Amino acid sequence: MKQALILHGPNLNMLGVREPDIYGAVSLDDINARLQEESIKLGLQLRFFQSNHEGVLIDQLQEAAGWASGVVFNPAGYTHTSVALRDAIAAIQIPVIEVHLSNVSGRESFRQVSLTAPVCRGTVAGFGWRSYLYALHALVELIAEE
Amino acid sequence: MKQALILHGPNLNMLGVREPDIYGAVSLDDINARLQEESIKLGLQLRFFQSNHEGVLIDQLQEAAGWASGVVFNPAGYTHTSVALRDAIAAIQIPVIEVHLSNVSGRESFRQVSLTAPVCRGTVAGFGWRSYLYALHALVELIAEE
Amino acid sequence: MKQALILHGPNLNMLGVREPDIYGAVSLDDINARLQEESIKLGLQLRFFQSNHEGVLIDQLQEAAGWASGVVFNPAGYTHTSVALRDAIAAIQIPVIEVHLSNVSGRESFRQVSLTAPVCRGTVAGFGWRSYLYALHALVELIAEE
Amino acid sequence: MKQALILHGPNLNMLGVREPDIYGAVSLDDINARLQEESIKLGLQLRFFQSNHEGVLIDQLQEAAGWASGVVFNPAGYTHTSVALRDAIAAIQIPVIEVHLSNVSGRESFRQVSLTAPVCRGTVAGFGWRSYLYALHALVELIAEE
Amino acid sequence: MKQALILHGPNLNMLGVREPDIYGAVSLDDINARLQEESIKLGLQLRFFQSNHEGVLIDQLQEAAGWASGVVFNPAGYTHTSVALRDAIAAIQIPVIEVHLSNVSGRESFRQVSLTAPVCRGTVAGFGWRSYLYALHALVELIAEE
Amino acid sequence: MKQALILHGPNLNMLGVREPDIYGAVSLDDINARLQEESIKLGLQLRFFQSNHEGVLIDQLQEAAGWASGVVFNPAGYTHTSVALRDAIAAIQIPVIEVHLSNVSGRESFRQVSLTAPVCRGTVAGFGWRSYLYALHALVELIAEE
Amino acid sequence: MKQALILHGPNLNMLGVREPDIYGAVSLDDINARLQEESIKLGLQLRFFQSNHEGVLIDQLQEAAGWASGVVFNPAGYTHTSVALRDAIAAIQIPVIEVHLSNVSGRESFRQVSLTAPVCRGTVAGFGWRSYLYALHALVELIAEE
Amino acid sequence: MKQALILHGPNLNMLGVREPDIYGAVSLDDINARLQEESIKLGLQLRFFQSNHEGVLIDQLQEAAGWASGVVFNPAGYTHTSVALRDAIAAIQIPVIEVHLSNVSGRESFRQVSLTAPVCRGTVAGFGWRSYLYALHALVELIAEE
Amino acid sequence: MKQALILHGPNLNMLGVREPDIYGAVSLDDINARLQEESIKLGLQLRFFQSNHEGVLIDQLQEAAGWASGVVFNPAGYTHTSVALRDAIAAIQIPVIEVHLSNVSGRESFRQVSLTAPVCRGTVAGFGWRSYLYALHALVELIAEE
Amino acid sequence: MKQALILHGPNLNMLGVREPDIYGAVSLDDINARLQEESIKLGLQLRFFQSNHEGVLIDQLQEAAGWASGVVFNPAGYTHTSVALRDAIAAIQIPVIEVHLSNVSGRESFRQVSLTAPVCRGTVAGFGWRSYLYALHALVELIAEE
Amino acid sequence: MKQALILHGPNLNMLGVREPDIYGAVSLDDINARLQEESIKLGLQLRFFQSNHEGVLIDQLQEAAGWASGVVFNPAGYTHTSVALRDAIAAIQIPVIEVHLSNVSGRESFRQVSLTAPVCRGTVAGFGWRSYLYALHALVELIAEE
Amino acid sequence: MKQALILHGPNLNMLGVREPDIYGAVSLDDINARLQEESIKLGLQLRFFQSNHEGVLIDQLQEAAGWASGVVFNPAGYTHTSVALRDAIAAIQIPVIEVHLSNVSGRESFRQVSLTAPVCRGTVAGFGWRSYLYALHALVELIAEE
Repeated sequence: MKQALILHGPNLNMLGVREPDIYGAVSLDDINARLQEESIKLGLQLRFFQSNHEGVLIDQLQEAAGWASGVVFNPAGYTHTSVALRDAIAAIQIPVIEVHLSNVSGRESFRQVSLTAPVCRGTVAGFGWRSYLYALHALVELIAEE
Repeated sequence: MKQALILHGPNLNMLGVREPDIYGAVSLDDINARLQEESIKLGLQLRFFQSNHEGVLIDQLQEAAGWASGVVFNPAGYTHTSVALRDAIAAIQIPVIEVHLSNVSGRESFRQVSLTAPVCRGTVAGFGWRSYLYALHALVELIAEE
Repeated sequence: MKQALILHGPNLNMLGVREPDIYGAVSLDDINARLQEESIKLGLQLRFFQSNHEGVLIDQLQEAAGWASGVVFNPAGYTHTSVALRDAIAAIQIPVIEVHLSNVSGRESFRQVSLTAPVCRGTVAGFGWRSYLYALHALVELIAEE
Repeated sequence: MKQALILHGPNLNMLGVREPDIYGAVSLDDINARLQEESIKLGLQLRFFQSNHEGVLIDQLQEAAGWASGVVFNPAGYTHTSVALRDAIAAIQIPVIEVHLSNVSGRESFRQVSLTAPVCRGTVAGFGWRSYLYALHALVELIAEE
Repeated sequence: MKQALILHGPNLNMLGVREPDIYGAVSLDDINARLQEESIKLGLQLRFFQSNHEGVLIDQLQEAAGWASGVVFNPAGYTHTSVALRDAIAAIQIPVIEVHLSNVSGRESFRQVSLTAPVCRGTVAGFGWRSYLYALHALVELIAEE
Repeated sequence: MKQALILHGPNLNMLGVREPDIYGAVSLDDINARLQEESIKLGLQLRFFQSNHEGVLIDQLQEAAGWASGVVFNPAGYTHTSVALRDAIAAIQIPVIEVHLSNVSGRESFRQVSLTAPVCRGTVAGFGWRSYLYALHALVELIAEE
Repeated sequence: MKQALILHGPNLNMLGVREPDIYGAVSLDDINARLQEESIKLGLQLRFFQSNHEGVLIDQLQEAAGWASGVVFNPAGYTHTSVALRDAIAAIQIPVIEVHLSNVSGRESFRQVSLTAPVCRGTVAGFGWRSYLYALHALVELIAEE
Repeated sequence: MKQALILHGPNLNMLGVREPDIYGAVSLDDINARLQEESIKLGLQLRFFQSNHEGVLIDQLQEAAGWASGVVFNPAGYTHTSVALRDAIAAIQIPVIEVHLSNVSGRESFRQVSLTAPVCRGTVAGFGWRSYLYALHALVELIAEE
Repeated sequence: MKQALILHGPNLNMLGVREPDIYGAVSLDDINARLQEESIKLGLQLRFFQSNHEGVLIDQLQEAAGWASGVVFNPAGYTHTSVALRDAIAAIQIPVIEVHLSNVSGRESFRQVSLTAPVCRGTVAGFGWRSYLYALHALVELIAEE
Repeated sequence: MKQALILHGPNLNMLGVREPDIYGAVSLDDINARLQEESIKLGLQLRFFQSNHEGVLIDQLQEAAGWASGVVFNPAGYTHTSVALRDAIAAIQIPVIEVHLSNVSGRESFRQVSLTAPVCRGTVAGFGWRSYLYALHALVELIAEE
Repeated sequence: MKQALILHGPNLNMLGVREPDIYGAVSLDDINARLQEESIKLGLQLRFFQSNHEGVLIDQLQEAAGWASGVVFNPAGYTHTSVALRDAIAAIQIPVIEVHLSNVSGRESFRQVSLTAPVCRGTVAGFGWRSYLYALHALVELIAEE
Repeated sequence: MKQALILHGPNLNMLGVREPDIYGAVSLDDINARLQEESIKLGLQLRFFQSNHEGVLIDQLQEAAGWASGVVFNPAGYTHTSVALRDAIAAIQIPVIEVHLSNVSGRESFRQVSLTAPVCRGTVAGFGWRSYLYALHALVELIAEE
């Protein structure tokens, strides 16, 4: 059975706490549970990881290259500043899909350019927890094609 | 039964013709057929429209406000240059989702900022014709929530 | 009797529909009716035209050069992006006045520079439908002077 | 009877002296006289003030908040550089309308952004002394509405 | 016999009307007639088209891919703003040559970057109607080489 | 007994009038009274001055160099535009501390760079009238150290 | 008894070691001791934390939301680059005050914009260890007001 | 006998006080005295004026147009920020020469562009008080030529 | 018989050596020979010159003003950096036409602005050695017109 | 015997895995082994450390100040984004040399400015693992000189 | 007797030929003759040199360091582009004064920043050939002071 | 025996003269002598060349392509401004290594981008004359590999 990593970046452990008018009231555990449920239908085994640490996220991406067939990744605040995460995504061979809960392009101007997106396969943004869901579907297709 | 518009911007009628290494060999009719098929499962009635004309796309968006519950829109080359399309999306009350076949952020720098995305509900990019598919799923959810 | 063109750019047909807190509840027909009424007092015959199409607006400006003594023009979203409209205004000899319903300089930064204003005779912005009214008065004076 | 301030910024006392091909041969006293005449028809009492001093213009705006129902203001050279004038306009509750004799957007690039316009209600530019006239008409309407 | 499209962008129908000190007194019909004459010598059959509409120009480029061996194209005001036209040129396989009547690099700064030139084969600018002539000669050579 | 100048820049005389949700309801006289009270405890004699005039503020800074041991200065709108005030602060030998009532970095982008701060000893911003209070404490320490 | 976090960013553990002409000879332990002493007078209980790790600082801010009434935070080198820290500050409800030992605006240009300041309540910079002291006083007031 | 104005901008009254390593130990009175002396040889009558007020400098320039044949002007800190002073210089017909004591181009980057220089006849910078001397010589020649 | 200069800038002596996929396998001597041949038909006498030295190119342009009726010039790498060459072209009265072998606008961004083109009469780029050929034809016409 | 730190930044543990056409097939252990070998000849004792964590790299630099005579550092992706690493290098007194395996200036534009290089003693880039070798030689000389 | 170099940059040998409305009708020989005349009065021996070659100008500056007490230098078109000339001026110990015939700040924007001025002692611009004269006077004073 | 060129750019002949605190007291002859000595050990024959002339440096690079196996090149001031030198390096097939005596990235901002480095194989900067030494070692390896 194929495996995939659901990787959550900084402050996403605060979901359900942080401004609910932007992010909804759904917690990170809720999201993971729903994805877990979906993955059973899709025949994919998921592991979940969240960290506020750029280096830990890089470690996880590198390790995932050894066991996972792909990654669904929400780089959150590191999206716009981390060349190192970009290099990590570029260095591993497995497909990575970037997701965002909110429609980042509609927020502050410094959030409008993503350093990580150019080395990801695709992006899903603006649909709350369902951004992960659609990315998961896309990942299954990408894995199937390879 | 709810209705939605699938709106294709400039040059998308060339799909299957244009550089297949970037966009795949799938034609616009193929995409529409697959979405049509999916829409039956989703209980949504679709209309399809493609134009190379910025003004015609604006007309279509405005008219859709009268009959559709939402729009899946690929603004293609107008994504980065059209304030008028942005205003049209902002002026209508129904949800609009931006899609791109390719991972635009990985191409030329003038493609990295989208004028239309900030007034859309969300974005799906990089998954070929499936970008439309996931956007359609997202639209169904958005319509259901409203 | 002198003639003039009142030319409305993209999305202005949505007036009365679009966010009423910014643009007021007055529709485009209302505006045209009031200008029509005023024009009788001013001894000027008006024609009205609205289009969402950049090319159609250029066509109208070019044709106006053949029958009108001047133009009151609201380029709306094309104000900030259209070199072609700028060239059309510069190419015709009759005076063109730029109007905006809202105070555009107080909105997004990409709306703060106008490509068309430098080749117009003047600008009126921020007074709702009355922006057209004052522009019409100004046009009458410009025509009288020439 | 309602009162309003006509406020002239730096170098406008030189009108009729300065490059007549741009500003016309009309002096500041001429402008004031014509506005005075118009104000009688409009049922509005005007006071006139000109200063080359940014601080004096701020003083005048602040004082006007105590006696005037609105201001027609030509900030001239301070338009593009004065955050302090912008703050003064924002601090007073009465409507302020920005006017310019010439079509500033057609001149040097440093004149294309206005710091004061975003906090004014509207702008009239490019019609010589008549820019004041149309602004006065607009002010009467704004006062009537409030 | 090989065929080619001579495609004229916005406002070029005004030639002979627009500022003659920049563009000369030659009309668009004059240009087409001279090119027609030259094409006979060159053994090439020409079709001519002018439009002020960005979308129509895209349509023409796409259609030309079906019948023409190449295009001589003056994008005029769309040169600097149209990603959609750029995409259309890139999508068709036949050679496109960009021409300008005037020496655009010597005009306003926003005219100094061309979005379309990088996907054209070459550029000829500054020689009035003869810019088309030299481009036609170049096109004949490009077609012969392919 | 040591002396210090509390110098207030443009529009601060409007405090208690201007948008109370940003600046609180405290007037400039209130602020001065509280600082006066505090200064007695601190063994420092204060003089207070407010002006809307850039030149008068420069005059005051220059004169203060003759009688004061330091200055607490809120340059308000001149913070971001005045090289002349910067030069005045740099020219006098006594310490100057910049204060702002609101958290300026959270407002418009043109307020994010301060021309005066680099030549001041330090900055206190965002604490309403207490910004002055903490600056006063800091000034006492700086004077004691010199 | 209310509690607060004193949070020190990267390289601040080097204080007393690093260039003493800029930062003084006071060590981080000295600073903490003096703040400890002051906190007793202020009736506030302090915890101290320093880390060179962006992720650890985010963790600390998030945890502080569970036990502290506010934070005095010196983000040091992360001030200018960390969107993730900005998000962490924005996500927690308790007040955060930004402090800097030196007058950062007088240093390299890349230090002149703070990503974190706009989501903090206020800033104190330039007074060596006393920047913390005044921030602590301000925090006590902010906590009292809430 | 011809007359000229020597106009000194903000902070120049501090000469001899301000950083002597940059400006030398010569006071403003010294400079004026030496110029006075030189003017006798040159057969020119000088008046001297210094102000820290932008508005007063504008007033002086305007008045000088009535009695002086030319102006030697050191705009100091207003050089880089004052569009109003630029307009004043452009509005008067007499020649104005810009002087700077120090070599401004070798200082901070915001001092490298002069708003006033383009409308002056010429510039002399970097020679301490002698910058005025050479400007005076140049002015005498300019007056003689007109 | 009229004379013209064919002037080749830096590194063009390397033609036939340098990346043949961009520049073709034609050497500089080949180009000159073909132009020589063409010039006989055109009734124009050509001189050829190549230099890697900016100063020598300036010398040649200046001298050409004494004997030639026009210049076809490929400034190569100096196109984008040489104000001095621009001044030389502007200083001589004879027409100069800029040529480039490759389509420079499709290469690195620092090659997209030409300092020399605004003072040339026109530009031909992207047609290999034939860029010179068309420029030669254009020059003959320009000479004939003058 | 003198000691030095060889510090490897993010993703360098992936060497030998990541795109071999850019970085060669040499692993990080290979590099360390070769440097170890060289260090024996040079009479220098090396310690090696790699981390993907910005904070850990800062910790290592700070600690190295206590035992090492110098550092050879490849900041990889943090080169372009980390003010905190720059501060760490500036805070320690021992010499630090920046190395890069590839010729970073030939890659994406955001890699062309290094935040860390200005506070390092020198840079070696583009020679694969030998970049470290030459840096090690340079370090030995720098240590000997101090 | 002290000696000085009068160094003329590119295209200045064209004086009297080039656009006389900007530069006057005075030739380079005229200028040299007048300076020669003046130098006798000033007790300074002059050598004159003009070159269009950046490298030759650098050679001359370096050699001048061996025999001259100072240089009056008009870098012309190299003013804005030559880091190498800047380095040459900085490398020699003798004073260098930058001169320009015209008021360069009033011309194209790329002429508004001087790379050479920051390492010169001062600048004189805008007085035609007399710019050299005043620079010569200034140089005599600088030499006398050293 | 393999041969290589050591190429020194502008002002490097002034070494030992120019600011010794930045460049050390070592002359260019000293550097060449030491490299000569080292080359004997390395079995490489060196030729040395210095010029202040951009064109001469281009000539030398082109000629070196005929006899040398590689080049060690210090472009000095031309590093940041010469597209022509960049083209010369790109045009020749042999490896070129860029060296700088000082740590250029720590100097003025206009020295932070190198136009030549992207087409060189690698860079060594900051180690005084030893920058050449390490580059020479690197070159020997590069030659051996090819």
